[in-house]
Amino acid sequence: MKIAISGKGGVGKTTVSATLAKLFADSHKKVFAVDADPDACLAAAVGIPEEQIKGLKPLVDLKELVDKKSGGGGSFFSLNPDVDDILNEYSLKLDNIWFLRMGGIKQGGSACYCRENSFLNALMSGLLWDKESAVILDMGAGIEHLTRGTARSVDVMLVVIEPSRNSVNTATLVKELADELGIQKVKFIGNKIRNEKERQFIEKHFAKDEILGFIPFDDEIWESSMENGPAANLGGALLGSMKEIHQKLLQEVDG
Amino acid sequence: MKIAISGKGGVGKTTVSATLAKLFADSHKKVFAVDADPDACLAAAVGIPEEQIKGLKPLVDLKELVDKKSGGGGSFFSLNPDVDDILNEYSLKLDNIWFLRMGGIKQGGSACYCRENSFLNALMSGLLWDKESAVILDMGAGIEHLTRGTARSVDVMLVVIEPSRNSVNTATLVKELADELGIQKVKFIGNKIRNEKERQFIEKHFAKDEILGFIPFDDEIWESSMENGPAANLGGALLGSMKEIHQKLLQEVDG
Repeated sequence: MKIAISGKGGVGKTTVSATLAKLFADSHKKVFAVDADPDACLAAAVGIPEEQIKGLKPLVDLKELVDKKSGGGGSFFSLNPDVDDILNEYSLKLDNIWFLRMGGIKQGGSACYCRENSFLNALMSGLLWDKESAVILDMGAGIEHLTRGTARSVDVMLVVIEPSRNSVNTATLVKELADELGIQKVKFIGNKIRNEKERQFIEKHFAKDEILGFIPFDDEIWESSMENGPAANLGGALLGSMKEIHQKLLQEVDG
Repeated sequence: MKIAISGKGGVGKTTVSATLAKLFADSHKKVFAVDADPDACLAAAVGIPEEQIKGLKPLVDLKELVDKKSGGGGSFFSLNPDVDDILNEYSLKLDNIWFLRMGGIKQGGSACYCRENSFLNALMSGLLWDKESAVILDMGAGIEHLTRGTARSVDVMLVVIEPSRNSVNTATLVKELADELGIQKVKFIGNKIRNEKERQFIEKHFAKDEILGFIPFDDEIWESSMENGPAANLGGALLGSMKEIHQKLLQEVDG
């Protein structure tokens, strides 16, 4: 089960991803929660302390290690690295959830993300091998670096929307791209919904069977984002809405 | 006067950028408002209708044109294109504000942004030549593709923050990177401030003289983001706060 989460910056991708990771930890043996958006921090969203997170090595720092494994001298771009070892070494664990992060802090003037994107594609294919696991991949709005092969291995692309024109526009572009890449299912979640008008705004733009659910705007989540992770202690309207979405996802893939 | 706007996705970079574009249109002869973040749409934020925006050619589509100008056969990466022509052809105009957009919709599977980043750097240097203009560049959180030369031509990097731990973390990283790249001044704006506690949260993380101002949370802006651009009709608390910030920016650069 491999779920990719996309959408405009700030719509709540990380809160949705972290909550899903927790829910899939009940339905699946292992969960891999991967930050592929440099803006995201899933581990912080479930309340893992910042000092621990600082020690989490980003997967892109693996170049040297992977070079060594391939006998040295090999091009990183054509590698299919041994992913299992990496997962143990480059992760933070919370119960049966493994947190991984793709990128690190870039040096100024380093223009190119080709290496990271190539590695992400290799890792995605690697993670697919394990059938008892769920993979939650928190992506940015940009999904165009996925190869067709990697994209086809994604079971569902979830696009998070808030009631704003810009976030709907971004979601529409992501949908077009996902279709083009051959991603099997693209579904939408309406987040930060404060009233019926906002709900209708989203229903106006997407077909009913494309919308997996709505999450109400929650003052407590907004408050908690100053100190604790919004998905540290699940409860309230967020948990209720996300449980329904989790069930629908299980049906989408198994059914 | 060249201002770059950065910060985590969703913090309100585009609203701040669009409002600044309008304010600089009073203090400067020409304003170039550039979307360098694919998630952004400055033209929509000031209320330019969507049909018109759809016709706006992204600057990255210029490759062919630029190749022709350079006599053909030349590598795009080493070009210093004639920027003035481009600005006329690849922009939307509102009074003395020229709206430009860097990127277009990417094809799935296209991994590399090197071409775009290279062009952005060329364009940034080009826009610098004109001393009577103000340039407002709406960037994403990622500024690492800027070259040192381009970065040094930025007068002020404004980092927008909302009262959340993640947005503060992103802002701190942007600041580190900006310093490393040699950007002259890095300043912060606290956005979506609902109470004294949220204001203090931001003041706790940054020095007083680094914070250019605070913008209160505004229900009307949230509402307007469903249909009209939030900076279409400037007024209320947003305009008041941004006028102060505009004045401070003029002092920062001239003073």
